[in-house]
Amino acid sequence: MELENVIKERRSIRAYEDKPVPEEKLRKVLEAARLVPSANNRQPWKFVVAKEGKRRQELAQAANYQTFVGEAPIVIAAVATNTEHIMSCGVPSHPVDLAIAVDHMTLAAVNEGLGTCWIGAFSQEKVKKILEIPKEYRVVALLPLGYPKEGKGIKVRKSLSEIVCYETFQE
Amino acid sequence: MELENVIKERRSIRAYEDKPVPEEKLRKVLEAARLVPSANNRQPWKFVVAKEGKRRQELAQAANYQTFVGEAPIVIAAVATNTEHIMSCGVPSHPVDLAIAVDHMTLAAVNEGLGTCWIGAFSQEKVKKILEIPKEYRVVALLPLGYPKEGKGIKVRKSLSEIVCYETFQE
Repeated sequence: MELENVIKERRSIRAYEDKPVPEEKLRKVLEAARLVPSANNRQPWKFVVAKEGKRRQELAQAANYQTFVGEAPIVIAAVATNTEHIMSCGVPSHPVDLAIAVDHMTLAAVNEGLGTCWIGAFSQEKVKKILEIPKEYRVVALLPLGYPKEGKGIKVRKSLSEIVCYETFQE
Repeated sequence: MELENVIKERRSIRAYEDKPVPEEKLRKVLEAARLVPSANNRQPWKFVVAKEGKRRQELAQAANYQTFVGEAPIVIAAVATNTEHIMSCGVPSHPVDLAIAVDHMTLAAVNEGLGTCWIGAFSQEKVKKILEIPKEYRVVALLPLGYPKEGKGIKVRKSLSEIVCYETFQE
């Protein structure tokens, strides 16, 4: 699909078909993450792909009981494997790096006819336990992946004039 | 362009043509940022578009004297206007939200024949002063935008098998 259409069509999907995702489509979604930039090209990440039903149910429970998370045939955990690096602007690099990777996956999913939803509401501790993730690492997002069951919603967004200013900051 | 080609072609551009960016192309890049998701749809951002030559030079100096930043005809500062919200997973939402927006801009730029480069190496204090950004806000990235001068480089990335694991975490 054309990039512009992918961007327009992407939305948060909170209902999924009970239908497996072909391996090739999953591979393309992961490949999109693989190609993203990261601070100093450290690629400080691991993507844990959960498909087993019981594990997905546990992840849904760990995600504040958002049941749709477990209904998706795949849940991907985006794990930062270096959480200490701070960019000289003062912002830690791992949430930025991981967000770039996950953003790419959300777009690649649309391109494959699939849906996703950014999940930031979950217990860090419980998800780490379920996926056997070492303590020193950090899960930045969970991403259910599957065929969308729901129709197209409306994106409610601020206008460009509200979010863009020129030369200097204006409220 | 097709999404897959955009993703493959995007790379960090560190040399720009001395050639203005048409308004319509800039608008499309900003529109791509406008449409992204954010935690609770807060859209906690402002994008400051700097075009004036002197200001771009100052930004380049504030970006650890990376002169190519000032050579791009446009420098966009991605500003988080809410830095306090923490997702229940423990990750602050503003670096994630802003990274999603900037990632979309980097892809939309490629689609318009333009180049960008994520800049995280800059003085938060100096950039805020140059762009008159309130103290309580935070610049997450600078993004030079312009026609790329340099040829295509090679992306050095880990393989999928190094970054993906199934069901549970594996080093």
